[in-house]
Amino acid sequence: MLVLITYDVSTTDSEGRRRLSRIAKKCVDYGQRVQNSVFECLLDAAQFKKLQLELEAMIDKKTDSLRFYNLGDNYKSKVQHVGTKASYDMGDPLIL
Amino acid sequence: MLVLITYDVSTTDSEGRRRLSRIAKKCVDYGQRVQNSVFECLLDAAQFKKLQLELEAMIDKKTDSLRFYNLGDNYKSKVQHVGTKASYDMGDPLIL
Repeated sequence: MLVLITYDVSTTDSEGRRRLSRIAKKCVDYGQRVQNSVFECLLDAAQFKKLQLELEAMIDKKTDSLRFYNLGDNYKSKVQHVGTKASYDMGDPLIL
Repeated sequence: MLVLITYDVSTTDSEGRRRLSRIAKKCVDYGQRVQNSVFECLLDAAQFKKLQLELEAMIDKKTDSLRFYNLGDNYKSKVQHVGTKASYDMGDPLIL
């Protein structure tokens, strides 16, 4: 299935910026970054559950949020992109 | 149908910041902001097409991007949220 992961992480302090970097790296382990805070991951049910638990453990639930959208197996007709296709360098600091 | 709209807008100059503000306001006309650059809109096919055309006309395709995800009518089981549920004030300047 295609799982879309989006996140908002508070980056008002250095700990927040570290969380953001860790979360982005974890998502890249499982999928592709398509926008600054949007990842698409092809996962089976077990991988999805594992990634959810790993990401939930990384955020500060008082200030950050994660959203997961399950687009199923027949996802190709459901996704449209317009505009630039940026490539993201995971080594760069990410500011949202 | 539930349509998820995500965007990356380059805000390195004031024109980019204006585009970002205009795009966010347009999305709010049609739906709900769930994260900083993520909107969920309940639309019929005609509304979806109209919104797509309006947003496409607003971005700079060399630097910005839009993604549209159609989650269909049976979307409730497909969406999961973890963490804070921020409320966004459209009057605030938005920095991504």
